[in-house]
Amino acid sequence: MTAPTPGFTLGPNSYGKSGVRLVHVDRDTPRHVLRDLTVHTALSGDLDATHYTGDNTGVLPTDTQKNTVYAFARDGIGAVEAFAERLARHFVDTAPAIAHARVRIDEHAWTRIGDHSFASGEGGELRTAEVRYGGGDAQVAAGVRDLLLLNTTDSEFSGFLADEYTTLPATDDRILATAVTATWDYATAPADPDTAFRTARAALLDAFADTYSLSLQQTLYAVGERILKAVPEAREVRLSLPNRHHYLQDLGRFGLDNPGVVFQAGDLPYGLIEGTVRREAP
Amino acid sequence: MTAPTPGFTLGPNSYGKSGVRLVHVDRDTPRHVLRDLTVHTALSGDLDATHYTGDNTGVLPTDTQKNTVYAFARDGIGAVEAFAERLARHFVDTAPAIAHARVRIDEHAWTRIGDHSFASGEGGELRTAEVRYGGGDAQVAAGVRDLLLLNTTDSEFSGFLADEYTTLPATDDRILATAVTATWDYATAPADPDTAFRTARAALLDAFADTYSLSLQQTLYAVGERILKAVPEAREVRLSLPNRHHYLQDLGRFGLDNPGVVFQAGDLPYGLIEGTVRREAP
Amino acid sequence: MTAPTPGFTLGPNSYGKSGVRLVHVDRDTPRHVLRDLTVHTALSGDLDATHYTGDNTGVLPTDTQKNTVYAFARDGIGAVEAFAERLARHFVDTAPAIAHARVRIDEHAWTRIGDHSFASGEGGELRTAEVRYGGGDAQVAAGVRDLLLLNTTDSEFSGFLADEYTTLPATDDRILATAVTATWDYATAPADPDTAFRTARAALLDAFADTYSLSLQQTLYAVGERILKAVPEAREVRLSLPNRHHYLQDLGRFGLDNPGVVFQAGDLPYGLIEGTVRREAP
Amino acid sequence: MTAPTPGFTLGPNSYGKSGVRLVHVDRDTPRHVLRDLTVHTALSGDLDATHYTGDNTGVLPTDTQKNTVYAFARDGIGAVEAFAERLARHFVDTAPAIAHARVRIDEHAWTRIGDHSFASGEGGELRTAEVRYGGGDAQVAAGVRDLLLLNTTDSEFSGFLADEYTTLPATDDRILATAVTATWDYATAPADPDTAFRTARAALLDAFADTYSLSLQQTLYAVGERILKAVPEAREVRLSLPNRHHYLQDLGRFGLDNPGVVFQAGDLPYGLIEGTVRREAP
Repeated sequence: MTAPTPGFTLGPNSYGKSGVRLVHVDRDTPRHVLRDLTVHTALSGDLDATHYTGDNTGVLPTDTQKNTVYAFARDGIGAVEAFAERLARHFVDTAPAIAHARVRIDEHAWTRIGDHSFASGEGGELRTAEVRYGGGDAQVAAGVRDLLLLNTTDSEFSGFLADEYTTLPATDDRILATAVTATWDYATAPADPDTAFRTARAALLDAFADTYSLSLQQTLYAVGERILKAVPEAREVRLSLPNRHHYLQDLGRFGLDNPGVVFQAGDLPYGLIEGTVRREAP
Repeated sequence: MTAPTPGFTLGPNSYGKSGVRLVHVDRDTPRHVLRDLTVHTALSGDLDATHYTGDNTGVLPTDTQKNTVYAFARDGIGAVEAFAERLARHFVDTAPAIAHARVRIDEHAWTRIGDHSFASGEGGELRTAEVRYGGGDAQVAAGVRDLLLLNTTDSEFSGFLADEYTTLPATDDRILATAVTATWDYATAPADPDTAFRTARAALLDAFADTYSLSLQQTLYAVGERILKAVPEAREVRLSLPNRHHYLQDLGRFGLDNPGVVFQAGDLPYGLIEGTVRREAP
Repeated sequence: MTAPTPGFTLGPNSYGKSGVRLVHVDRDTPRHVLRDLTVHTALSGDLDATHYTGDNTGVLPTDTQKNTVYAFARDGIGAVEAFAERLARHFVDTAPAIAHARVRIDEHAWTRIGDHSFASGEGGELRTAEVRYGGGDAQVAAGVRDLLLLNTTDSEFSGFLADEYTTLPATDDRILATAVTATWDYATAPADPDTAFRTARAALLDAFADTYSLSLQQTLYAVGERILKAVPEAREVRLSLPNRHHYLQDLGRFGLDNPGVVFQAGDLPYGLIEGTVRREAP
Repeated sequence: MTAPTPGFTLGPNSYGKSGVRLVHVDRDTPRHVLRDLTVHTALSGDLDATHYTGDNTGVLPTDTQKNTVYAFARDGIGAVEAFAERLARHFVDTAPAIAHARVRIDEHAWTRIGDHSFASGEGGELRTAEVRYGGGDAQVAAGVRDLLLLNTTDSEFSGFLADEYTTLPATDDRILATAVTATWDYATAPADPDTAFRTARAALLDAFADTYSLSLQQTLYAVGERILKAVPEAREVRLSLPNRHHYLQDLGRFGLDNPGVVFQAGDLPYGLIEGTVRREAP
C-alpha cells in the first residue's frame, strides 16, 4: 500500500496495550496462591492501511489484547516467561495482519502472612519477562527492575581522567549504591524458568556483595559475568545501573569527625552506567 | 508585633526542612549496620517579625536544621522516636524564638545480604515516627506507611444503603486490599520503642489477616483495637485505608467461568476509609 | 452503639471516593467547552455500626458516590465550588446516616487550539475547591496547587539566628522559587466564584512578583494579605510554600565568575514555609 | 584488552550523568531571561579497562561531566540543540578514550509575569533535544514530551478485526486524547533551531486538530507527515502516542441520556501507538 502523499512513507511501528493489571488467585487449596502482574503487549505487521487511510481491517484492538490477557489467565499463569509466550504466539498465529508480537510482564512479589493473606511494600523490586515472537522460536528474556543494592564499603574510585572541569577527589572508601535493572536473554529456553530466575538473581546479589569495586563499571561487568556463569541458557546480560551517590557529610564544621558514618543520599543528578556482558561464541 | 496593614494578621504558621535524606553506617564491627532515614522538621514560635517585616533575628535557618540532623547522627541514631525527640528538644531548647517543634522521620528498611551489603525494593513500606515538643513531655507517635495488605477471601460487602445512583451489587466474597497508613500515639513512652513498633506492626498484620470482613470500616476498627490491645502505651490509633478495588473480570463473554480467580487491580478512583480507634479513659 | 470490646471506642472517621476523574464536554455550540476535574468525596455521620459489627445499613457505598458525581455532571458543571456544594448537600440531605460531607475538586486547565481541540501539559497547576457541609450554610474554600513561581532577583536572606550548626552564608541576591499551594476560605459566598478565583490568583501572582523579599515568610504574608484585599469575601488564606532552593554554582574553580547566572535547581531537601493570613474581625 | 575470564566479553556500553538541573538567568537587561534545563550525558568509547580491571585511566568522571554542563552555561545557552552539541563535541574532542557522546536536554517552559518573575505549572510539556556525536557531523534531533492533546469529536474507531475475545463496540464519535512524545531527526541542521522547533510544534498541533481520525494510527501518520512538510530539514519523525481512553458513562441507569457529554478519564491500562514517518529519498 502506498502512502497518501508521495514523498513520505511509514517506518517502523507497533501498537498494543500497556499497563494491564492482572491479579490471579489460585484457590485450589485453602492455601491460596496470589500472582500480581502488569502486562504490556505490542504488535506489528502489515498495518499500513490503518496509518494511511484509517482502514482498520487488520487491527486487533488493544482492548481485545487486554481481554485476551484476562481470558488466558483463567487456567493459570505459570512462569511469567511462559505466560508471555502464550500471549505472543496467540496474537501472531491468529491475527492475519500481525507478524510480530512483543509481550512484557512485570511481576510484583507479595509475602504470605496467612493462608489467604499477603503483605508487600508499595513499589518494590519487580521480576520482568519479555518475549518476542515472529514465527519459529520465541526470543525470551528475563530480568529484574528496581532492585536496590548498597555496599557500605569495599568500593573505591580513583585513577580517573582529570581535566580542567574535574573537581571530584579520589576516594578509597565510599558507599556504592544502585537500583538494578538487569535483563538476560536466553539462547535456549531454560527447563524451569522460575529456577533459572532465582539462580540469576542470587548470582546478581552475590556478585554485587562479593566484588571489591574500583568502579561501578567493574561491578557491572562482574554482575553480568556471574549471571552468565550461573545460568548456562543465558547468552547476554544487559545492565542499567544508576549510581545513587551518597555524599559523606563534612561534620568538621561542627567539631566532629566523620569516618564513613554519616551520608546524604543524593537524588539528582545521578551517574548512569549501562553495559552488556556476553557469552562468546565458542 | 502588629501586622503592617491594619485589619490583617498572621495566623498559625511553621517552617522547617523537609526531605533530609540521612544514611548512617555503624562500622563498629565488620558486620556494618545500615540506617536509611528521611527527616522532616517544622518549627514554630514567635515568628511574627519575619512575616511582617522580614526581620529574621529569630529564624534558625532551615539549612541549619538540616545540618543539625547530620551532626546529631554522628553518634548513632537509636530508635527513630528517640532521634526525633533529640532533635525536637534541641530546637526548642536552644533557639529563643522557637516554642514548638515537630520532627517526623520515615525509615526505609533494607535486607542484609552480606556483612556490608544490603538489598531493598524501590519505594516500599516505611516505618514512621513523629515527635511534637513544646516544653515538658514530648508527644510521641509511631506508625507505618505504604504497607500493602491483601486478603483473597473472607471479605463481604452487602446490606448497604441503596439510592437511585446505586449500581454496585452486593458481594459475599471479594478481594480486600489496602495500603495502610497507621499512626499510634503513645500516652507514655514505651521502654523500648523498637519492640513496641514490632509488636504493633505484628498486631496490625494479624488483625488484617484474621478478621472476617463485612466492610473495610470493620477491618479498620479491628486493626486499631488490636494495636491498642498489644501495645499498652498506645492510646489512639489513626488509620487511613485506601480501598484498592479488585474487579472480578467477566469471562463469560469468552465462554469461561471466573470463580474468584481473575481480577483487574484498579487504580483510580479508590475508596478511602479513615478512622480513629481510642482507648477509653478508665 | 457501643464498641464490641469494653475499653475501646471509635473516634473521628470518614469515608468516600477519591480520584474520580470526570471530563465534561459542552456541545451546545460547535465550539465545544471542555472541563477536566478530579473529585474527592468524604462523608461522616452515624457510622458506628459498620465499624463495630459490619452492619452497613447506613453506608452509602463509595461506588454510589462516584456514580453521583457522573450523574450530577450531566446538566453541566458550573463553577467548581458550586458543583462541589451540589454534591455535598445531596449526600447529607438524602443519606439518613450522613451528617457531614466534604467534597474537594481539582480542576485541570486546557488551552483551546480549535473548536473541539485542546492542549495541555502533563501535571500543571490546578484550581482547587473544597466544600464542607453539615446542614445550614456550606463552608466554601478555593485555591491553587502546584503553581510554580520564581523571581530571579529582589530576594535576600540575612540577619538570621546563627548557632553552632549554622553554615549558610547571608545573601543579598538569590533566586526565590516555590510551588504554591494556597487555599482561601470564603466568609460569604462570592457572587461569581470564577471571577473571585481569577482575582485571587492574579493578586497572588502580583504580590509574588512585586514583593522585595527578605524571607519567604515575608513573601507568604504579602501574598496572603494581597489576596484578602483583592477578594472581600475571603476571610483567611492558608499557604504552603516549599522553598525550591537554587544553588549558585561555584565556577571560580574553572576560572569563571558567576554573577547570579548559573544555578543548580535543588530537589531534596527543601525548606517548607507554611502559614495563615487572616482578616481581623472588625 | 581481553576480558578477565575467557568465554565472556563486554558488549555495548555507555556512562554519563543524568538529571543535571541547570537554571540560567540572563541579566543583561532589567528584563531577565530564564532558562530551565535538565541535561543528560552519555559517553562511550574505549572503556574495556574500567569494566575488566577497574583501571579508570580513560574515564572522565560523571561528576566532571556535570561540572562541564554548568561551566559551559556561563556564557549563555542558546538553542538547546546547539548547547547539547557544544557539550557532545567537547567530550569527544578532549577525552582521549571517548569516541561517542549523546547529550539529551529537556527544557521546561516558564511564562513571564514580570521583568524578573516567572510562573509555570508543575510537570508540563517539555521541549527536547538530542545530539549524537562521534566525530564528523553531529546527528541532531528535536522534539516534545508530555504534550497533552484532546479532540472532543471527529474521531471514530470501527471496522477493526474481531475475534473471540473482542467486546469493544465500534464507535463513530469518541474523545481522542493522547500525551505526545515526538522526536524528529534533522538531515541538515536548521539555520534557526528555535524557529524550526516552533514550526514543527505548530504543525503537530494543527495536524492533530485538523485530522478527522479513523484510528490513532491515522492521526499519528498525519502528524508525522505534517511535521516533515513544515520543516524541510527534518527527515524522520518518531511518535509515541498513548491512547488516553475516555469512557462514556452509562447514565441510562439513572434515567439520563449521555450524548457524548460525561466521560471518565481512564488511567490504566492504556493503548500505546508508536510509529515512524519518513521522508522518502528522492
